[in-house]
This record gives sequence, C-alpha cells and structure tokens, in this order.
Amino acid sequence: MVIAGPCSVESERQILDAARQVEEAGAVILRGGAWKPRSSPYSFQGLGRPGLQLLAKARDETGLLICTEAMDHEGVAHVAEVADIIQIGARNMQNFSLLKAAGRSNKPVLLKRGMSATIEELLLSAEYLLAEGNHDVILCERGIRGFDPTTRNVFDLTAIPVVHKLSHLPIIADPSHGTGLREKVIPMARAAVAAGADGIIVEVHPHPDQALSDGAQSLYPDQFAQLMREIRVIAEVIGRRIAEPVSVGA
Amino acid sequence: MVIAGPCSVESERQILDAARQVEEAGAVILRGGAWKPRSSPYSFQGLGRPGLQLLAKARDETGLLICTEAMDHEGVAHVAEVADIIQIGARNMQNFSLLKAAGRSNKPVLLKRGMSATIEELLLSAEYLLAEGNHDVILCERGIRGFDPTTRNVFDLTAIPVVHKLSHLPIIADPSHGTGLREKVIPMARAAVAAGADGIIVEVHPHPDQALSDGAQSLYPDQFAQLMREIRVIAEVIGRRIAEPVSVGA
Amino acid sequence: MVIAGPCSVESERQILDAARQVEEAGAVILRGGAWKPRSSPYSFQGLGRPGLQLLAKARDETGLLICTEAMDHEGVAHVAEVADIIQIGARNMQNFSLLKAAGRSNKPVLLKRGMSATIEELLLSAEYLLAEGNHDVILCERGIRGFDPTTRNVFDLTAIPVVHKLSHLPIIADPSHGTGLREKVIPMARAAVAAGADGIIVEVHPHPDQALSDGAQSLYPDQFAQLMREIRVIAEVIGRRIAEPVSVGA
Amino acid sequence: MVIAGPCSVESERQILDAARQVEEAGAVILRGGAWKPRSSPYSFQGLGRPGLQLLAKARDETGLLICTEAMDHEGVAHVAEVADIIQIGARNMQNFSLLKAAGRSNKPVLLKRGMSATIEELLLSAEYLLAEGNHDVILCERGIRGFDPTTRNVFDLTAIPVVHKLSHLPIIADPSHGTGLREKVIPMARAAVAAGADGIIVEVHPHPDQALSDGAQSLYPDQFAQLMREIRVIAEVIGRRIAEPVSVGA
Repeated sequence: MVIAGPCSVESERQILDAARQVEEAGAVILRGGAWKPRSSPYSFQGLGRPGLQLLAKARDETGLLICTEAMDHEGVAHVAEVADIIQIGARNMQNFSLLKAAGRSNKPVLLKRGMSATIEELLLSAEYLLAEGNHDVILCERGIRGFDPTTRNVFDLTAIPVVHKLSHLPIIADPSHGTGLREKVIPMARAAVAAGADGIIVEVHPHPDQALSDGAQSLYPDQFAQLMREIRVIAEVIGRRIAEPVSVGA
Repeated sequence: MVIAGPCSVESERQILDAARQVEEAGAVILRGGAWKPRSSPYSFQGLGRPGLQLLAKARDETGLLICTEAMDHEGVAHVAEVADIIQIGARNMQNFSLLKAAGRSNKPVLLKRGMSATIEELLLSAEYLLAEGNHDVILCERGIRGFDPTTRNVFDLTAIPVVHKLSHLPIIADPSHGTGLREKVIPMARAAVAAGADGIIVEVHPHPDQALSDGAQSLYPDQFAQLMREIRVIAEVIGRRIAEPVSVGA
Repeated sequence: MVIAGPCSVESERQILDAARQVEEAGAVILRGGAWKPRSSPYSFQGLGRPGLQLLAKARDETGLLICTEAMDHEGVAHVAEVADIIQIGARNMQNFSLLKAAGRSNKPVLLKRGMSATIEELLLSAEYLLAEGNHDVILCERGIRGFDPTTRNVFDLTAIPVVHKLSHLPIIADPSHGTGLREKVIPMARAAVAAGADGIIVEVHPHPDQALSDGAQSLYPDQFAQLMREIRVIAEVIGRRIAEPVSVGA
Repeated sequence: MVIAGPCSVESERQILDAARQVEEAGAVILRGGAWKPRSSPYSFQGLGRPGLQLLAKARDETGLLICTEAMDHEGVAHVAEVADIIQIGARNMQNFSLLKAAGRSNKPVLLKRGMSATIEELLLSAEYLLAEGNHDVILCERGIRGFDPTTRNVFDLTAIPVVHKLSHLPIIADPSHGTGLREKVIPMARAAVAAGADGIIVEVHPHPDQALSDGAQSLYPDQFAQLMREIRVIAEVIGRRIAEPVSVGA
C-alpha cells in the first residue's frame, strides 16, 4: 500500500497534478492536508474545507483513494465526508477526544506515532479507536525525537517488527517525516519495505521548491517513480506485493 | 504561587479534605482533574462535569482558586464556567484546536510543556493563545521524556532560566510529574524555586495509597506542609515571596 | 561485507563451531571478543589473550578474517598481532588515547558509533584515526539510546545515507546491538542493506541460550543462513553484491 | 564542597589568577585540565604535563586542593603525582581500563556521569573503582544528551536525590556543562544545592572571552563570588554548610 502526495493541498492545479503523477507511478492512495497542524500560528494552516473539495475532485479524476488529516472532533465530521482514510497526526496521538470521534466514524484511521511515544502508548491510543468499535486502524512510524541535528527525526524502523509481534494491526512507515530530507527518503523507504512495513506514505510535490510546507522533504515526481520501481522488487524478496492502482475506467 | 491538590477529583470527601489541607499549608490554588487524559482507555477517566461541581464547592469552602484541565474545545466551555485557571496538559500542548478555544476564553491558561517539546515549540504554542487575545498565559515545565527508567521523566529545570530569557511569560514547575516519585518531589520543588520558578504545582492527596491516579507521586499532606516551609526560605534567598492565601472570611 | 560470530570467545569448541557455521553461510569475517567492555565489573569480562589465540586458530581453520575489539592502548598492540580488523566499541568512541593508538596501528579499524553520539562526533572520532595516518576506517551504526523499553536501542539506519553524503568512509550496521532482540535482527539486517549499508555485523552463536553474553540477541546458525539468503537478493536490487568467502584451499 | 576554575590550564598567568580569584570567593578545590578530551583532533588538547606543574604551583600559592582529569592509564600515573582528586570525564565513564587504573591509585576519584548513562550504569562504573579498593569516589551529574538545541545538555538534577537513595556515595553537580550557558550557571547551581548536591564544580575563567575551551559557559570571577554568596544561604536552609578554604598560612 503506497500513499503519496503533497504535504498540503495548495491549489487545484497542484493537487490534480500531484494526483496524476503519483497515480501514474503506481500509488493507490492520495495524501494531502486540508488542515495542517503547525508549530507556529503564523505558518500556513491549510485551505480548510475548500481543500477537501479539491481532494474529492482529485479522486474523481484519478480513482485514487483519499487520505487526509482531521485535527479535532469537528474536523472528523468534515473529513469523513470526503476521505477514504482519516489521518491522525503525531501531535494528536494522545488527543483522546479526537481518537474517540475518529473511533465513532466508520472510516479507516491512519494513526501516526507521537514524537516521543513508546510502542505501548501507540497501541493504547489505537485501543481508543478499537474501543469505539472502529477496527480499521493502520499504525504509522514517522520518526521520533532525537538529539542529532542532521536529521529532522530518528526514523525508528524497528517499530515495524515490534508492532507485528505485539499486535495484529498493520503498520506503515513515513520516510518523509522520518528523515526530513528529500535525498534520504528513497533509501529509507526501501529500508522500511525490507523491514516488513505494510505500506509507506511519502510526500511528493509537483514543484517541491514552491511548496508551502515540507518542501525540503518532498520528492520530485520522477524520484517517486524511481522509488516505486525499487520497492516493488524488495517487496517481492520478502514475499509481498505492492498494491496496484485500479484504473478509473475499470 | 503554589498550586496543590490531587491528580483527579475522586469524591466530595477527597477533594474537600485535600482543599483544606493544602490551604492550611499555604497553597493559594487548588488543582484537581475532572477529565483525565490517560494513555489507556481502560484507566480511570475522571468524574467529568460532576467533578467540576465538586471543585466549585471546594472553592466556596476554602477560598482557594481552582485550576483544572480542559481536554477539548467543548471541555473549555465547561471548565471556564468553574475554573479560575484552565490547564492544558502536556499531551495537548500541540492540540491547536484546543489552544485556540482556550485562547478565546477569558480565563488564565496554564500551558504544560509537551513530553518532547523544545522550548521554542512551547513558546509557539503559547503564541496560539496570545494570538487569540488571551495574554494570561503561565508556562509549566513538567519533565521531558528520557532514557533512564529510574524516574518517570527528566525534570528539565534549566527551562526556567531559558524561558525567563526568551519570553516575558511566567513559568512554573511541576515536580510531581517531573520526577514521578513522591520522595523526590520535595528536593526538586526546592530546586525549582532556587532556579527561579514563578511557582510550583504539586500533587497532594489525603490518602496517596488510595488514589485512583498518580498515587506514587502524590505527597502526604504533612509532606506538603514541610515543603511549603522549605520553599518559603529559599524564595526569600533569591528575593521572592511565596503568595499567601486570603482567608475566606477576609 | 558480512561480519558474524559470537559476542565473546568462550571456548575453543564454541569459536571453532561458530566460525565454521558462519563461513558456511557465507560470512567473510569472524567477530568475537577476547576483551569485553561490560557495564558491571562482576559480569564476564572475556578470556583475554587466550581468546585471541583461539581466534587465530579459527582463522587458520576457516580462512575467515578476524575482527575483534581492543579496549585500551595496551590492548591495541595485542589485538593487532592477531586481528585483521581492530574494533573500537561504542563506549570507547571518544576514548581518544585508544583512537590514537589504533590510528598508529597499520590495521583497518571498525569504529562503532557511541550510544549518544551525533554523526558529526562519529566523523570527528574517525578523524583521530585518519590524523594518525590510518585511512582504513569503517564506521558502524549500532543503535543509539532511546526512551522505549521494548528495544535495547534505537537502530538509527538513516545514519547510513547521512554518512554516505558527508564522508567517503564506508559504514556498516549492527542489527544485533541495534535492536537487542534476536527475532528483530533479520528484518533489520534486511533494512540496513536496503538503506545502502556497506556491510553488516551480526552476532551468531552455536547455542545462544548458553552464551555468556548477549545470548538474547544472538542468531541461531540456521537463522543466520536464512538472513544471508535474503540480503543477497536485496543487495542485488540496489546494484550491490555480498562479498563471498575465499575457501582456505584456494 | 565547591570546585572551581578554568576548563583548561592555558598559562601560568591564567591559572594563578583563576586560583586566587576562586580561593578568594571561597572555593576549596581548583579545577583545570592539563589533558582535554575534545571531539575534534584539531581542537586545543591541553598543555599536558607542563599543565600539571602549573596546577602544582597554583596549589602552593593558594592552598587550594587540585582536581584534574586523567584520560588514560598512563595519565593516571602522571595526574596522581600532582592531583588531590583525579577526575574521570563523561566520555570516559565506561572506559574500564581507565577506571581500573584510577581504582588502583590511592587518590579520591571524581567520576562524571556519561552523556547517556543511566544512574545504574553510573553506579556500576563506580563499582569498578570500589572493586579495586578505592572507596573515595565522588559522583557528578553534568548533564545528559537531549533534543533541545537551546541548551548544551539536559541538566538532570533529579539524579541527586536518586543517587542519595540508591548509594552511600556523594554526588556533586556541574552546572557549567549541565547547561553550557554562562547566564544559566548561577540559577542552576542554586538549584543543585537546593536539590541536596554534596558539592558543585563550576568553570570560572579570569577572561572567559579569551578562553581556549568552554568560554561560553565559564563564569566571570565576580559572578562566581555572587554565586558563592547565594549558595551559602541555600545550603543553610537545608541544614548544610559550604566547606571553607583553609588559608595557606594556617
């Protein structure tokens, strides 16, 4: 399962271009934030509901499923109308009101590991979703806080076999946030697949240098296409297969 | 400024006893959670709105101000009716919807540092409150995640002089969560005051061994009284004074 | 380049068995400690010089090269007589006297990253070796200290592409110490190769449950053979090849 | 017990000036490195044995005891000739050959906590000294590695009551390395004393802006005098007393 797309929905042109590019390379799910949790109130906060409409349009045009983030109880209701997967971000892993609301939606939830969450805490947060009756939970390793300024986070890939041992839930990996550096995304996406990840989520932008957020860690579309070719082979080595997009006409 | 009281409001008897005990020892603000953010959905989650009513009653009986936590947008409205200070917990430091709601309330906000938040991120979260027009913000160091299993957290007291240098906002310290161990609370509360903290927030329970949450880090009432005596002298050394309670009759 | 063998040299039988087993599976270098840095003075400290003699014997019998650790200036002289590669352990990454001594030996040095060393500090420690004229330096990622008790360390595989970008030095990975858990070694060794590691170093013991040190993270010989098969294919995917052992008779 | 002085011995003038200044303010032990463990081989490495002679001269002139660092087995022999206390630095906390050599000297040893050492590991390293028959061991908290770039380290003062509970060994604190910032040294030294530290070790330099190492965290002599005044009062609050220098003539 490969989820790809820009950090934020920025414009119709941007999200449609991105959707076509990642679909062409073989992704089956489009990511893109309509609401963005930003450390500073003065950073770009996302387009909000109009962003959701653009995601719906991208789905109509490409057949990709949509994965986008909800930041609060109210947001879950809006996001659930459009998204095929509701994302809960790292900063909100222990936002229990949000977890309960997402648990009551009937959409699959992508739950990202908090920046300093133990695996046990990640699984307990998933339990908040399960306890509300939502069993479609996908966990995501996206890097934990570390001391080395070279990378944005420490990408803790061992979380993948650890979760596979402790839980029946699938776990995917986010090498874009995990490393924070475009040129590290390809090797670390390969590593995630080799470690047994059930999928990856990758930031891809038609023009990373013009991105309103996370440009430095977004792949160029052709880099993403190369990454897809490499992980297809690695997946096979460990007896797995990358899910293929279903064409819209099919 | 000394804030003291139990982790959670558990019963009328418990919160009124606690209130009288901390008031007698010299605290001016009563803490106690009506809603509790817990890692597991199966742990005690707090009494909810009835807990708020018990806090209001404790205020009427002792004259103490009330500090209690809001966990979401809706919670802010309820808490603001009763509390004199709205607490935002460490897990919610980057719950931006909650920050905006608290910023629009007209109550002082106690903002706790996230478990792996940098000082800059703490100040940016405060900025979300300030940007909504709420200038009564009190920051709180409560320990960051560390690698040593001996203590629950690493109590990063250097945050106090660092915040004093970078910001005009006051910062208090929470040695109960900072250490997680009852017998370490007294020395570390003294250390916080010596480092220049603008206040402390301490968990005190009439019967810590019967507490429904955080019993192991809650002081016995007589330990709290001893702590108050010690920090009064240390505060004087650095030219400060512990705020005194105003008696209800006054 | 695959380095494999037990944590410590324990007996002639143990090291010769291990040597034959890892050679058969395709390793080209035998690891095994004669001196062991142990947190406690009461833990097994290694056989010392007799351990070195057993390693020499294992080389004679299998043709494997020998990689073993030196813990101080004096040790470098002894180790250099027997070893083909001198290992400097994580705890000694900033033992500058040891670095200088190893830099003056004319043997390749395997330098492990310290438990909380930044990549920059690792490269500066390598610089101590280079500055003495020793240019055969191999770096090694072996896990950094983290907060999650599930694993022994956080295996920071992103260090591999980071080092490849910043330095011309090769870097290998140690999934045994990186995870501390036998069943995580295979997926994480695959991940290391997929991330571009120039080799791996793995603990393998003929009877892990009887090991005097690190038994819980040592592979059974047949697990190691499986790992070799898997990484051969992954190496090919990224255009690399696992070095093959040269038979003794050749 | 207050240990003070420059990071490194740089010249006769510098060390004698520093010695007089800290003696005048009330320190009883002079610190100053003759050999300096530096991350880079190209940084100032200390004066070596001539530095030791300058320390001996400073002792003769002021009556201060001398505390200086040994970096290896050989160094212990040299340092033991001159020093009253042998320091083992944080990077060497698990340099077991050095620990054994220092354990066989008959001088008190100041053992600094490693950058990512647990308290248990610190106590086990002390055990290496005790096991050699040296019972004069002083532990030292000097900050652990953290994720916040604002400070050089995380000064983990809770280590003080934790060590007091687990061990009979005294523990002092080093606010200079603990914070890495001159203006944070005074509040954090106060905090260390309030937390119950058995002493502090502080970097003081006659001209911090000209220091060859650690200038940014070294106090000006008059700042040190102010710090001494403040901690004398705090020590009294918790029923302790700062050791007074014995004048040379006495």
